[in-house]
Amino acid sequence: MKLQATQENLHRALNNVARVAISSRNPLPILNNVLLRVVDNRLTLSATNLEIGITEHIGAKVTTPGALTVPARLFQEYIASLPSGVIDLDIKDNKLHIKTGSYQSTINGVAADEFPVTPTIDKKESWKIPARELKKGLSQVIFAAANDETRPILTGVYLHSHNGHLYAVATDSYRLAEKKLMAFKGSINLLIPASSLQDLLRIIADSDGDVVVYADGQQALFEVGDSELITRLLEGNYPDYRKLIPPTFAVSANLQRSEFQNITKVASLFARESAGSIMIRFDEDSEVVSIASVASQLGENISKIETKVTGNGDVSVNSRYLIDALNVFHSESVAFSCNGKVEPCVITSDEEPDYLHVIMPLKS
Amino acid sequence: MKLQATQENLHRALNNVARVAISSRNPLPILNNVLLRVVDNRLTLSATNLEIGITEHIGAKVTTPGALTVPARLFQEYIASLPSGVIDLDIKDNKLHIKTGSYQSTINGVAADEFPVTPTIDKKESWKIPARELKKGLSQVIFAAANDETRPILTGVYLHSHNGHLYAVATDSYRLAEKKLMAFKGSINLLIPASSLQDLLRIIADSDGDVVVYADGQQALFEVGDSELITRLLEGNYPDYRKLIPPTFAVSANLQRSEFQNITKVASLFARESAGSIMIRFDEDSEVVSIASVASQLGENISKIETKVTGNGDVSVNSRYLIDALNVFHSESVAFSCNGKVEPCVITSDEEPDYLHVIMPLKS
Repeated sequence: MKLQATQENLHRALNNVARVAISSRNPLPILNNVLLRVVDNRLTLSATNLEIGITEHIGAKVTTPGALTVPARLFQEYIASLPSGVIDLDIKDNKLHIKTGSYQSTINGVAADEFPVTPTIDKKESWKIPARELKKGLSQVIFAAANDETRPILTGVYLHSHNGHLYAVATDSYRLAEKKLMAFKGSINLLIPASSLQDLLRIIADSDGDVVVYADGQQALFEVGDSELITRLLEGNYPDYRKLIPPTFAVSANLQRSEFQNITKVASLFARESAGSIMIRFDEDSEVVSIASVASQLGENISKIETKVTGNGDVSVNSRYLIDALNVFHSESVAFSCNGKVEPCVITSDEEPDYLHVIMPLKS
Repeated sequence: MKLQATQENLHRALNNVARVAISSRNPLPILNNVLLRVVDNRLTLSATNLEIGITEHIGAKVTTPGALTVPARLFQEYIASLPSGVIDLDIKDNKLHIKTGSYQSTINGVAADEFPVTPTIDKKESWKIPARELKKGLSQVIFAAANDETRPILTGVYLHSHNGHLYAVATDSYRLAEKKLMAFKGSINLLIPASSLQDLLRIIADSDGDVVVYADGQQALFEVGDSELITRLLEGNYPDYRKLIPPTFAVSANLQRSEFQNITKVASLFARESAGSIMIRFDEDSEVVSIASVASQLGENISKIETKVTGNGDVSVNSRYLIDALNVFHSESVAFSCNGKVEPCVITSDEEPDYLHVIMPLKS
């Protein structure tokens, strides 16, 4: 292989690809490498950790085709350190020779045929989702997925169609986030690992176009411009979460979001001993919502917001979940609703009718 | 104690003080607290880890005097989270009651008389150093001090007068940095722990005035505006470093600093296996300085700079030390000089005649 490509293109492509190769989850040493290939007169860079694979295509002036794998971390850092401009890449005897201006280096590689074959996907079913909308929506739900593997199904984001709309949902069973992404014809039902979607969000970055999604029973492929991400899908039936959301609420208050965030953060400082537990109290007559937290050793705290309140009552929640939820709204105000100490609490906003967040109360 | 102070003043003072209390080096639980006292109708906040003590004085509207110690981390984070404005502080029964607007909290404290007495210092000798100059100078030498305690004396910065000037010097025996701070009458000879000076740099921040330095045999006190830092001094005789610096050089080159930084960084990527070792080669006839590094497993790299060179030769140095040194110069260009593979290398700049950096070669 002998070709020329720009530092800018190589740098951008490696930023997306190398992360997968460098990740500590990699089961085989060769997966710490990135595969370079000439495909259709372009340079293709690929990496995989056997859970996901990322491929980038960049423009190149190809003299001779070929392929090699090289250590991803060194190659990425080296390219990132070079000045912008044209870079000569030349493969001879499993060594990659890199040259630009006064810089010259050789990186020892491993033959491309030792690299695992990138899985292919049956492309008969596909959907288009605007990149901006998908990114905004996923950012609002992805953090609610479970981090631990006790219930693998909850480590995924449930992308599905329902009543003519496309929804993204995630829950770790303590909280749930649901985003109605867009009107949608047809049927889709994918359970995608949240970690794969974190990588997809990085790849989408500021893309303006569409994300094209292909899926077969085992895998999904996302195409964003010159980037591709392929991921395994999770198996199993997602919980029927809609029936868990109370249809009506006895207690509700409208709160200015930034003020609500601030008093929750202050309360959380005193909630460290009690696993983040804070108590929210609603008082209809005095029109006050108060948040209290107690640290038996350190002290206690109470903060108040004056606002219109419907109903009386109190509920204890994990302050971290409440902070997470308030951070992903974009609206000026939110409505916090509940039915006492046991049923799920729901946070919504008239300004963002497509987003819903549910938090399970703590025993208090 | 009952008083009012502003959130802004408390926040700023706690940022300086709390760090010492929170540090993991603290040998006693009470040292994780900050001491609040009314002194001269102002609020004084102090913390110590028995190596250094920091005290801040802030304006307050004092109703009744008093004192208490409270957990530094909680108090700092709580104050930082409050909105700006006046805060009421009130101590009753070893509890600190804090109130502002709709926020109200109680922090459990420990009686002030259980807090170690802040050491005092004999103030008969003092010197004034402009804060900006001291900060700039210390930043250029402090990182060259040793981190490990094998030779405790090298963990300090040597602040001393010599031939009518004040100097700051640090060395870990692999590299040495010397800054001529200012013309100076009188005699000073202090060996100050570098970690204490790191805290001093944070306190100086953007101060414009003078730093007043007091010292007796065991301790030094730095006054910067309303802040005070007291530190123990290191004992022992600092190495006679001046005789280690070669008076003349057989090989020297003038290098554009940013270009030199960049090729050093690129070379360091290939130097990880060899403990950072890179080889700098000087060629007088071809007017080229080249930096080469070899990673037996991963590959090799060579980069070149065309520039005027005096003499021929090569020397191996630790790329990290060279990067550190080049980062603290402010000049456009630097001169790198050496006498072959064994004697110390020296980096200077005509634009910064008051600063000198020495790096010991590696065996190559």
